[in-house]
Amino acid sequence: MSFQNLTRPICIVGLGLIGGSLMRDLAAANQPVFGYNRSTSGTRTAVKEGFDVSDNLDATLERAEQEKAILVLAVPMHAIGEVLDRVVELAPSCGITDVVSVKSPVYEEIRARGLESRYVGGHPMAGTERSGWKASQPGLFTRAAWVVTYDYAAELAERGEHTPNEWIDLFSNVVRMIVRVQAEAVPARVSNHDAAVARVSHLPHIVAEALSIVGDDGGVLAQSLAAGSFKDATRVAATEPSLVRAMCESNAPALVDALDQFIDKLAQARDSLAAEQPDIRGLVEAGHRTRTRLEARSGARQDSVSPVKISSRPVLRLHPGGPRWVQQLAQTEDLGGRIEIF
Amino acid sequence: MSFQNLTRPICIVGLGLIGGSLMRDLAAANQPVFGYNRSTSGTRTAVKEGFDVSDNLDATLERAEQEKAILVLAVPMHAIGEVLDRVVELAPSCGITDVVSVKSPVYEEIRARGLESRYVGGHPMAGTERSGWKASQPGLFTRAAWVVTYDYAAELAERGEHTPNEWIDLFSNVVRMIVRVQAEAVPARVSNHDAAVARVSHLPHIVAEALSIVGDDGGVLAQSLAAGSFKDATRVAATEPSLVRAMCESNAPALVDALDQFIDKLAQARDSLAAEQPDIRGLVEAGHRTRTRLEARSGARQDSVSPVKISSRPVLRLHPGGPRWVQQLAQTEDLGGRIEIF
Repeated sequence: MSFQNLTRPICIVGLGLIGGSLMRDLAAANQPVFGYNRSTSGTRTAVKEGFDVSDNLDATLERAEQEKAILVLAVPMHAIGEVLDRVVELAPSCGITDVVSVKSPVYEEIRARGLESRYVGGHPMAGTERSGWKASQPGLFTRAAWVVTYDYAAELAERGEHTPNEWIDLFSNVVRMIVRVQAEAVPARVSNHDAAVARVSHLPHIVAEALSIVGDDGGVLAQSLAAGSFKDATRVAATEPSLVRAMCESNAPALVDALDQFIDKLAQARDSLAAEQPDIRGLVEAGHRTRTRLEARSGARQDSVSPVKISSRPVLRLHPGGPRWVQQLAQTEDLGGRIEIF
Repeated sequence: MSFQNLTRPICIVGLGLIGGSLMRDLAAANQPVFGYNRSTSGTRTAVKEGFDVSDNLDATLERAEQEKAILVLAVPMHAIGEVLDRVVELAPSCGITDVVSVKSPVYEEIRARGLESRYVGGHPMAGTERSGWKASQPGLFTRAAWVVTYDYAAELAERGEHTPNEWIDLFSNVVRMIVRVQAEAVPARVSNHDAAVARVSHLPHIVAEALSIVGDDGGVLAQSLAAGSFKDATRVAATEPSLVRAMCESNAPALVDALDQFIDKLAQARDSLAAEQPDIRGLVEAGHRTRTRLEARSGARQDSVSPVKISSRPVLRLHPGGPRWVQQLAQTEDLGGRIEIF
């Protein structure tokens, strides 16, 4: 893979698991990167490790403005509005992206401040159940999907208008940053992203919480017998509760739809099991088929013994701003594909 | 740990993932072990690897009778009745245990043939999503719970009767076999076992199947974004469908109870999310608390850096047939504890 060079420094606001891991990978790739961490002890540790980190938000944003950096907002959802207010005041010309796991509420905050032309939403599908700078690690994003939103360009294209060069430059740099940390840039519009992650990320969190409680309710014998399948299915219930609530509660409408479908499947299984001749063939065969398909798709990434891992996502090599480029983004989204910039 | 020596050879009927892995560990521990495999190619492979395996069931059972072996039935539930009929005919004095993941239907087959005094039920809480001799592996049972049932002795004790020596000898040898392969013998009565595994094993299987389908229904974008939490929670949906059906359908009553409680929890979460102010604090905090407790209990086994792993299950050192030994088994069961024989 040939790397596409970023044309701007990166300023990361919030250095927890995601922000911190991003800083490690960008620094390791010799990409100019600096950032802000609210935690004084986290800042001290990061500085000791040689990273360019401050615990002064205003000074960091002023520096970002001066260096024409791209801002990566890696703070929790509830802090986004407050940080954006500081950005409007202190970094009024910086491009903005973020890593929040739900995109609609972030985009509402962006719209409320008229920042659409300076914003490309982002969401790396990577993480662990731990949090904070101490949980950050190199290589966290390798071959992970990293969603990039393009609603602004899509809305302009629908009206037959061109995307401003400022936005194209920002979008291109965000994609380059993603590729730079070995992740795969998957384009998706805000609402499509939220519907998808409700199913494949937020629903598994709700399931893990509920399953953990039901297992525990079985008493010490059940707890003593809990093995691999139970531990794997409940692993993410170890995630910091405030993070789970922030994700799920801020994506409530999409998550309710996913939960309705899931509960319906379980209720069907329940009735099949309560019948005189229990028979869950339909559920089990469809579950096996869909799981096998998932495995086949991600097989090249997970199980290849080759030293050169090959992505299973179709790739579009994009010329941002070129003819029909926004339509190409939409086609790539419909395929769950990834983009590279040339 | 000092090993308690088995006083009888082991004859394993059915050499799939569980039976095959048991044979590997017993042979490695220099314990006399032989067995039967229905699959000719599986038998050939096992013999080539130096194991004492035949594809002739009748001859294997006749040999077991001659050598006073203990039979470990490691065939699927649907084959248990048929194998027991052969055992009644060809190995009429052998003690019997099994590894089937649901204990009530096996015990019904045992009762139907009046074999209670020759039977100790077993269930190792270990496995992978693969099956067959080729999936068998050494060390599969290390530190896993391996349930041993004792309903026969419990029923006699309730009536104030002594357990026959024949059954005590069988029970002791089954526990020794379990300890020999580094597993932990957890006593449980049949119905308590089935209620517990419905929650911590069969429910996670149903959840994995349903979640896999709902994720897949999200289309290629959702599929492309599926990451760790989704893959972990759906892993066991890759299990051979007939095995999942056999487990879940044969434990239907207990599984329906567990599903009802689980669906209820999800429906509450759904309503909390559909409220004007989505709030799932109760669910998420209880899920986190119970998952943290599970982790703390199994922490010594999973994460210890010490070369000597310590079990987190309380241990009872038992003198089988001694005063109040059946009551001690019941107390250990109530603690989710394990037993050793001295």
